[in-house]
Amino acid sequence: MDISSHWLDRVVRRALEEDLGTGDLTANSVVPAELQTVGLIQSKENGVLAGLEVARRVFARLDPGIQFRGRVDDGERLRPGTLIAEVSGSARSILSGERVALNFLQRLSGIATLTSRCVERIEGSSTRIVDTRKTTPGLRALEKYAVRVGGGCNHRFGLYDMVMIKDNHIKMAGGIQEAVERARRGVSPMVRIEVEVEDLAMLEEALAVGVDVVMLDNMSPELMKEAVRRAGGRVLLEASGGIREDNLAAVAETGVDLISMGALTHSARSLDISLDLIEAKPLSVE
Amino acid sequence: MDISSHWLDRVVRRALEEDLGTGDLTANSVVPAELQTVGLIQSKENGVLAGLEVARRVFARLDPGIQFRGRVDDGERLRPGTLIAEVSGSARSILSGERVALNFLQRLSGIATLTSRCVERIEGSSTRIVDTRKTTPGLRALEKYAVRVGGGCNHRFGLYDMVMIKDNHIKMAGGIQEAVERARRGVSPMVRIEVEVEDLAMLEEALAVGVDVVMLDNMSPELMKEAVRRAGGRVLLEASGGIREDNLAAVAETGVDLISMGALTHSARSLDISLDLIEAKPLSVE
Amino acid sequence: MDISSHWLDRVVRRALEEDLGTGDLTANSVVPAELQTVGLIQSKENGVLAGLEVARRVFARLDPGIQFRGRVDDGERLRPGTLIAEVSGSARSILSGERVALNFLQRLSGIATLTSRCVERIEGSSTRIVDTRKTTPGLRALEKYAVRVGGGCNHRFGLYDMVMIKDNHIKMAGGIQEAVERARRGVSPMVRIEVEVEDLAMLEEALAVGVDVVMLDNMSPELMKEAVRRAGGRVLLEASGGIREDNLAAVAETGVDLISMGALTHSARSLDISLDLIEAKPLSVE
Amino acid sequence: MDISSHWLDRVVRRALEEDLGTGDLTANSVVPAELQTVGLIQSKENGVLAGLEVARRVFARLDPGIQFRGRVDDGERLRPGTLIAEVSGSARSILSGERVALNFLQRLSGIATLTSRCVERIEGSSTRIVDTRKTTPGLRALEKYAVRVGGGCNHRFGLYDMVMIKDNHIKMAGGIQEAVERARRGVSPMVRIEVEVEDLAMLEEALAVGVDVVMLDNMSPELMKEAVRRAGGRVLLEASGGIREDNLAAVAETGVDLISMGALTHSARSLDISLDLIEAKPLSVE
Amino acid sequence: MDISSHWLDRVVRRALEEDLGTGDLTANSVVPAELQTVGLIQSKENGVLAGLEVARRVFARLDPGIQFRGRVDDGERLRPGTLIAEVSGSARSILSGERVALNFLQRLSGIATLTSRCVERIEGSSTRIVDTRKTTPGLRALEKYAVRVGGGCNHRFGLYDMVMIKDNHIKMAGGIQEAVERARRGVSPMVRIEVEVEDLAMLEEALAVGVDVVMLDNMSPELMKEAVRRAGGRVLLEASGGIREDNLAAVAETGVDLISMGALTHSARSLDISLDLIEAKPLSVE
Amino acid sequence: MDISSHWLDRVVRRALEEDLGTGDLTANSVVPAELQTVGLIQSKENGVLAGLEVARRVFARLDPGIQFRGRVDDGERLRPGTLIAEVSGSARSILSGERVALNFLQRLSGIATLTSRCVERIEGSSTRIVDTRKTTPGLRALEKYAVRVGGGCNHRFGLYDMVMIKDNHIKMAGGIQEAVERARRGVSPMVRIEVEVEDLAMLEEALAVGVDVVMLDNMSPELMKEAVRRAGGRVLLEASGGIREDNLAAVAETGVDLISMGALTHSARSLDISLDLIEAKPLSVE
Repeated sequence: MDISSHWLDRVVRRALEEDLGTGDLTANSVVPAELQTVGLIQSKENGVLAGLEVARRVFARLDPGIQFRGRVDDGERLRPGTLIAEVSGSARSILSGERVALNFLQRLSGIATLTSRCVERIEGSSTRIVDTRKTTPGLRALEKYAVRVGGGCNHRFGLYDMVMIKDNHIKMAGGIQEAVERARRGVSPMVRIEVEVEDLAMLEEALAVGVDVVMLDNMSPELMKEAVRRAGGRVLLEASGGIREDNLAAVAETGVDLISMGALTHSARSLDISLDLIEAKPLSVE
Repeated sequence: MDISSHWLDRVVRRALEEDLGTGDLTANSVVPAELQTVGLIQSKENGVLAGLEVARRVFARLDPGIQFRGRVDDGERLRPGTLIAEVSGSARSILSGERVALNFLQRLSGIATLTSRCVERIEGSSTRIVDTRKTTPGLRALEKYAVRVGGGCNHRFGLYDMVMIKDNHIKMAGGIQEAVERARRGVSPMVRIEVEVEDLAMLEEALAVGVDVVMLDNMSPELMKEAVRRAGGRVLLEASGGIREDNLAAVAETGVDLISMGALTHSARSLDISLDLIEAKPLSVE
Repeated sequence: MDISSHWLDRVVRRALEEDLGTGDLTANSVVPAELQTVGLIQSKENGVLAGLEVARRVFARLDPGIQFRGRVDDGERLRPGTLIAEVSGSARSILSGERVALNFLQRLSGIATLTSRCVERIEGSSTRIVDTRKTTPGLRALEKYAVRVGGGCNHRFGLYDMVMIKDNHIKMAGGIQEAVERARRGVSPMVRIEVEVEDLAMLEEALAVGVDVVMLDNMSPELMKEAVRRAGGRVLLEASGGIREDNLAAVAETGVDLISMGALTHSARSLDISLDLIEAKPLSVE
Repeated sequence: MDISSHWLDRVVRRALEEDLGTGDLTANSVVPAELQTVGLIQSKENGVLAGLEVARRVFARLDPGIQFRGRVDDGERLRPGTLIAEVSGSARSILSGERVALNFLQRLSGIATLTSRCVERIEGSSTRIVDTRKTTPGLRALEKYAVRVGGGCNHRFGLYDMVMIKDNHIKMAGGIQEAVERARRGVSPMVRIEVEVEDLAMLEEALAVGVDVVMLDNMSPELMKEAVRRAGGRVLLEASGGIREDNLAAVAETGVDLISMGALTHSARSLDISLDLIEAKPLSVE
Repeated sequence: MDISSHWLDRVVRRALEEDLGTGDLTANSVVPAELQTVGLIQSKENGVLAGLEVARRVFARLDPGIQFRGRVDDGERLRPGTLIAEVSGSARSILSGERVALNFLQRLSGIATLTSRCVERIEGSSTRIVDTRKTTPGLRALEKYAVRVGGGCNHRFGLYDMVMIKDNHIKMAGGIQEAVERARRGVSPMVRIEVEVEDLAMLEEALAVGVDVVMLDNMSPELMKEAVRRAGGRVLLEASGGIREDNLAAVAETGVDLISMGALTHSARSLDISLDLIEAKPLSVE
Repeated sequence: MDISSHWLDRVVRRALEEDLGTGDLTANSVVPAELQTVGLIQSKENGVLAGLEVARRVFARLDPGIQFRGRVDDGERLRPGTLIAEVSGSARSILSGERVALNFLQRLSGIATLTSRCVERIEGSSTRIVDTRKTTPGLRALEKYAVRVGGGCNHRFGLYDMVMIKDNHIKMAGGIQEAVERARRGVSPMVRIEVEVEDLAMLEEALAVGVDVVMLDNMSPELMKEAVRRAGGRVLLEASGGIREDNLAAVAETGVDLISMGALTHSARSLDISLDLIEAKPLSVE
């Protein structure tokens, strides 16, 4: 998993603190401390797995004695009944970590599954599906990871790593040209500049002043085709707005380079995944 | 908003740090520092508002000079075009906070909207809709707040404030009676105890040993009706598993006290809400 | 120890940071880095042990190479000279951690000892001793753990896990009935509701509106007996106020379910516990 | 109050987080949001006040709209009924902060009261009472402040700001002279060096090698007198071990410069202080 | 100042905690609490100012009652005696914050001064001076800000916002082409790719596979000129390695787009800046 | 390394977070996850090593699987080509940690090198070189450690561990005598008191009132000699102000005990140190 270890640790720690608070009243009182068991994490529906490493860390942080054996990798297809991982060790710890681990797995796999379905819709084209900043506060790096796992690409990570000049910015600057020129003077030469345009006139203005990426906002497929023709490969073109699974193919056919979809992260449904204990035995010798 | 101020501040701070990193390259380079403007936050579809106070704090934390005037309250109905709030002040700050504020508003209003729709389905009955721990890691208190705003009730907040003995716990303890007795000995007399049962025999066992709440897991309406009859008001009964918007009414008719739905928080779709700037003027005098 | 690992780690980390700051000037300059030794943690008076796991973590955090072998468990009786634990490893690390480990052990064992003494006073009755929120800021979970170790029970953990309607709340709400009804509408059905009453009229009002627990504030044993009679087992009754070790038995005889004592945590005297080094030798081979 | 603002803020924030968690269920459901009231903080017994500024910050952090008016200052005498402070503002906020504010005030005033009583016992002598590192983990700076308020002096703050060579260090170094010489080579010339001695021979050794302070461990008054004679003002002498309120005067008469008492912080009883609401009225205008 | 407020607050808070610890012993004991004064921050040598806003926040955090009036802006020239800012308010607070404020101002102005001197050396050319990741751990955003203030440009901020394929990466990947192709497949289409080359053959390889920026490592001016000719404007060229103030002009003449200098941040000398109090008076009325 | 482990961990964690953010785009995309390699950390110039343990922790935190073998110790001389350490393990991890590890090593070795050069200048005298509080915000404990490694001594660590009465304090207190008396009453008897004087009259005043250390500010060697004579060994004398490498010997000859130099930490040049990978092979078996 290509996310910084410290970032992952922090998000896992917060989730455990939120759920456990001062302690798991049920497991601590009902389950003997020395009881060992094995839990099976299984999918209950079709989908794409994402977040295995996060689940592993949830249990590792709770109890370093737990063994977590992944049986499929992130990005692989899941069917009802697919065994995702085996978790063995203290029954208390497994039960205390179950919900947090599943919450991560279900949400991330839900995003990977939706992304994968979208990518399949445009298979064969050179257009790529990208995400947006419409992510759950605090989980962006994980949700963008799930998009990559599902076969999508990431757009910028935040306000700090790229310039994106949207309608509101243009309004404040008094025009595309002025906005782009200010950006070019104000930021590092290493940072890419993107401009959002609503029609072909704005596109021409963006091409004239010179940017790296142009976002075509809410354009019809016909307009997008014309935009592709006019850009002539000088910039990356990104289609955005009003894009659903059922019109993805039509948008891709226009020849745009990128299609961005906020729904990948803000409206994905969680995938149904469960953890079941299969046996329990007292710990023999340590 | 009845969530601790310190909790709210922390979640807002994290979200801003995640999105802004070392700084907003676009606003800082494109928008003059002294420019003042007004932004309108508006709904683009039907729904129920939740999270106004969170949005207010996003802007307040970013720039204490921003004025945020809410126009509707959490819990009120939104229609396409409903003005939710006016944000006025530094154009740079408004643009830098826009996405984070909307991410909160859209997610929380999405949950409140879905909850409200479910609650309407069983209007007239005395059954209540409750949430679960299937929440987004790090946002539980906010998501549970959104459920309340939508007319639902909260189940326990975490592993620390109630005993919930599920199938896995029963397996580990060797039976309902043993599990409940251990819990009663092990936890504060102030903590309620709930047991999950799968059939009427288990229900009888739970009633015999004495608990506060019984969760009826994946039972048919007929079984639930019989469970309600046997419980005779001695415990709260909670229906769980396989519940969808379209069978809610049938479940409520069985007379159970509570219906819990993980989907309220794990699979709600974001509500479409936007922020548009309406004017810009240089700051006259400070 | 049934306290969340992350909670324990945080409190131990803070204590070490507070005492060590940028480093232990004495041990680092006076004791050779390679010197190995064994320290004995021993009780110097009679009492009940609490906090062994905390002491273990103090040393583990400071130096993972230290071996900590507990010789008695939390809850066991201590006499002058009882060996509590052996700590072996780097002499520097043992000396640097000594004070912090003892500060925890002494305070927690002091609370467990006092609690145990109170519990003994009412042995044979079915009344239970419970703690309050009058704990040391930052150490509540640990101090409540020490109360459990001493044989007491915990009351609520904080403002977030139970409703407790006290005189000031009743004043603000305009009466018991109004206060309780608001609470019942406002909180999760899973949360218990307690009301504080000062006389029998208030008790009757509380019984009429229906609550889970009633706190009898500063009542005489005679009044409490009458309260027990009137409640007839419908609610838990908690005696509070003016309770000392020497009148505990009299209060328990009234038949109340719970007796709460703030003194358990706010006025317990530390137990005298020491750490002595018994030998020192240069580290041979690792 | 001469404690760093950031330090104070952190300890207050932690205490509020611990008690409020996700929110105060009782105040939020029972007390109307707009209700204003006034609370009186009063002493219920004789003592010395410490911690007023901490109480003020508890309320300020919870709700910047609360007004907190201190009526006596830290260090002043309290009698049963002394009005310590008036708190006015939102009834909800006052009730939510009450316990945390009182927990600080009661503990710190308890320490100041005990210290003050000890200082009075040796009034007229030039000997000073000093504290130790036997403080509550996480509260050291506050507890040492309370000692100062009570008329005592502070010993070192932690392991980082002074060298204190105790019996265990001497054992590890192989003698007083070797230990002191290592310390002098190893630490800043700005750091004072203290040595613990158990008899006069060790005192002579310490005087010969040259240190700043000598701690006389568990010596009889007669031995201490002789130690004072031998030291002849070349070093500060600190009496330690076995010191109680009733033998303080005898120890001070020996002429030692300092008497250190762990009990000041580890075994002080909380002072009884209460908060009562005196009126409630709906907020007229904002 | 275009650095995120939360980032700035954190770095200021840490610096104050580091210096003040539990409190300023000198100011708190020597300076009366009510004393008001005015401090003048002045330059003692020639240079360029950077960090005024950081100094302002140091005092604001320490004591919100302090007034800080900047007299010159970041980026302006300083001479011996130039008045940079006036700080008025509590004498204690001004003295407690003095060193931390000056430490920031001196270091950042030192970087801005050195950068400015380098930029002047190549005035008239279109080449830009850029910084590197050779910054002080924990201060990168501030140090990169100081480079911008001095007229330089920023290179990437960290490992997360750009791809930079250096000699070690090429070695691990087995060649430039393979490395670049992996990067292009693996990262967002929004991220720029730079490759480090040591000779013209490598440059040709980089041009062939298509990258955004090429770093010319330790090349002679003659080689760089040839590189500029071959690149023909298709990529940005960055000169790096062995560049000193005295050969900057020669490097710029080769026509490279960027010259990166680690010395800007890792070896700048602090600028000499002082704070002097000019008057003191007791606070009249608040 | 005699710096607290928790302190070191925090500073290393911050540095990694700053540089890696959400992840190392280059290493993660270009270098295969399973590739193992060996990196050599080597000096490229003459100097004194400091910070080896910090570099070790950078890699350990990033990837516990990395082996770090130091080849020279802190305090040893480096020449061009000296092998400082071998780092072996995952190629990705080594590349991701390289810059942060080198940034620490280069800065700390730069300080140790400069300090060592200064100490050599006064070899043979009994005068010691001490540092100041003019350190990089956030790195003080490390930079003061580097001064010790270079053979210097530390002055106070912060405002919290010593009293230093400077010209501004004297101005606020109305004279040396008043300032010193206030300090003596206000702080622990364990804390040393230093006064800054500008002429012999002030020195006499300081000697009369009795302090531990006197700082001679910006005095000529002749004046310092006279100050040494007058002090007659009753206090430590510290020379400060206007001291450069080339007049160090002259200052030491005056017989002062300490010479403090801010330049040790605020203006040291980084030492040139590099990391090169020497081989790469796929991981055989785990």
